[in-house]
Amino acid sequence: MPVTSVSCADLMNSSLHVNVMHDDSVPKDDDVTIKVLFCGICHTDLHIIKNDWGNALYPIVPGHEIVGVVTDVGSGVNNFKAGDTVGVGYFLDSCRTCYSCGKGYENYCPTLVLTSNGVDGHGATTQGGFSDVLVVNKDYVLHVPDTLPLPGAAPLLCAGVTVYSPMVQYGLNAPGKHLGVVGLGGLGHVAVKFAKAFGMTVTVISTSERKREEALDRLGADAFLVSNDPDQMKAAAGTMDGIIDTVSAGHPIVPLLDLLKPMGQMVVVGAPSKPMELPAFAIIAGGKRLAGNGTGSVADCQAMLDFAGKHGITADVEVVKMDYVNTAIERLERNDVRYRFVIDVAGSHLQGHAA
Amino acid sequence: MPVTSVSCADLMNSSLHVNVMHDDSVPKDDDVTIKVLFCGICHTDLHIIKNDWGNALYPIVPGHEIVGVVTDVGSGVNNFKAGDTVGVGYFLDSCRTCYSCGKGYENYCPTLVLTSNGVDGHGATTQGGFSDVLVVNKDYVLHVPDTLPLPGAAPLLCAGVTVYSPMVQYGLNAPGKHLGVVGLGGLGHVAVKFAKAFGMTVTVISTSERKREEALDRLGADAFLVSNDPDQMKAAAGTMDGIIDTVSAGHPIVPLLDLLKPMGQMVVVGAPSKPMELPAFAIIAGGKRLAGNGTGSVADCQAMLDFAGKHGITADVEVVKMDYVNTAIERLERNDVRYRFVIDVAGSHLQGHAA
Repeated sequence: MPVTSVSCADLMNSSLHVNVMHDDSVPKDDDVTIKVLFCGICHTDLHIIKNDWGNALYPIVPGHEIVGVVTDVGSGVNNFKAGDTVGVGYFLDSCRTCYSCGKGYENYCPTLVLTSNGVDGHGATTQGGFSDVLVVNKDYVLHVPDTLPLPGAAPLLCAGVTVYSPMVQYGLNAPGKHLGVVGLGGLGHVAVKFAKAFGMTVTVISTSERKREEALDRLGADAFLVSNDPDQMKAAAGTMDGIIDTVSAGHPIVPLLDLLKPMGQMVVVGAPSKPMELPAFAIIAGGKRLAGNGTGSVADCQAMLDFAGKHGITADVEVVKMDYVNTAIERLERNDVRYRFVIDVAGSHLQGHAA
Repeated sequence: MPVTSVSCADLMNSSLHVNVMHDDSVPKDDDVTIKVLFCGICHTDLHIIKNDWGNALYPIVPGHEIVGVVTDVGSGVNNFKAGDTVGVGYFLDSCRTCYSCGKGYENYCPTLVLTSNGVDGHGATTQGGFSDVLVVNKDYVLHVPDTLPLPGAAPLLCAGVTVYSPMVQYGLNAPGKHLGVVGLGGLGHVAVKFAKAFGMTVTVISTSERKREEALDRLGADAFLVSNDPDQMKAAAGTMDGIIDTVSAGHPIVPLLDLLKPMGQMVVVGAPSKPMELPAFAIIAGGKRLAGNGTGSVADCQAMLDFAGKHGITADVEVVKMDYVNTAIERLERNDVRYRFVIDVAGSHLQGHAA
């Protein structure tokens, strides 16, 4: 099944693009110029490319799970220098004045500038990490710990912070607490790694029995539940302090809420296209809590990277060159990746020149 | 429209009942004997009487919004004495050993003993506040401040704590914060009073324009929104720190979630019979939070009563005698009460003897 609207040539061309945040194409004093090294392919890229959400601004340069190296900084930048390993995530600017920006959760700024398919302050469409070079304001650039292998670090910039942020926010980061992780994909497998590093008991919940071994033996989860086996689900009822639901395919949430202890917290980070059905009693009985989460703040993202660096946490990735990107996206649509494609952007560029 | 299954005679007979928690009908050392003075009629009583939830244990003696006076205490009771004004709420015992009881939110104990239509530790059906006398373990009895008029205090024991508890739990009790209260009934009108006493800005949200004057002029709300007026709702989008949704008739929740600020908290205390429709994006965008709440813990309830006493908060009630109870329940079904019927139980008893 071909990817709609974006040809391989489009995507290849994107590697020649220089993403500059300002209308005069000259970096400003507070800007950091970044040579992109690796960029993950997130499901959001897929949705944008296919215009699933009706907001695609063609031509699109995808990519918002970016690691690279600083090549230059403006005169006002004192927190980065040339040679630093850095990351850029789902957004690269915000208004800095709204309620959310003031509270430090600029990821919910209503005029957030997305790294790809966003609109910057000058009305230009932003073009993401499938580019050679990004120029980003210093306040939206992250330090990537030197200890982390870079391909596996790239997906942390979106998948990682999207699960880490609510875990910390809702206290689902305490040793001994029990976390359920629904779905073992790009987000889910990183959630398992973070939760284990926090010292939690982790149960993976999946529709597919065939992920059991992977969850338990390779990722170190403590238990595995097949969500459509009522007996397994019933046996685990009321045992979990929290649940991170990463599944974007439609699925019933009441059986998941049943797994929570009283006043337990479920966090939805996957977005099924159809509304969830939520009987009021499923949350009134037990005083249960449901929240959504979209990525994380800059501070959350830095804290996540620091934690990942300390604990050696990266995503499991399949590194590809730019000329494989359409195939990768087709495979991503079929969930045929363990667990994240990451494009070797800088390597593709060299390859392109050598061809 | 007659109330199903319970005749006026049934309810009148209930006033002769003595509710004793133990199989041998003798109060224990830790028991408090209470002469019931007033008992509110809650919507839950209506649901139970009509067996709407399929769990009615006939014959039913309703009532769980109870104020009374202590007539006797067991030898192990040191926190109450004869003559004390006390209250009993939605439950009158719990297991004391489960996760919820251990955490101090025994209202979510899986073997909670409801005050009416519950099952006690000996398998007996509990019979509620439409009785003359209750015998309740000292740990589940509340002190009612002497400053409060008792008829209006009775509904605080369920309606009051059901809105107060989540307000405190979710930080919706801070001066300057903005609370939306959906529905201006038994729960909603008390929520407005608590919120104003907390120093909050309060907006009442109702389907009915005709409640505007009542909300603003009499209850002191700061603003009023008609929920099915998209222009009014849009103008208020993103302004509220929290929402308490008290409406048990089916209604869309997305327009309510839209009223919340980023990371705002909605609490559902009314239980529509059909599931709510919740698109994931409605909570992912803005990281919004939805929780259910069922009544409150004993500690919550005492804190609520103390707060109410300090601020002179009671429910607005229509006091009736027991011989009016079936009419009251019929009127309650039509929402024809401002805002709570309260039975003058002790007064009805005297009346009965005089007849």
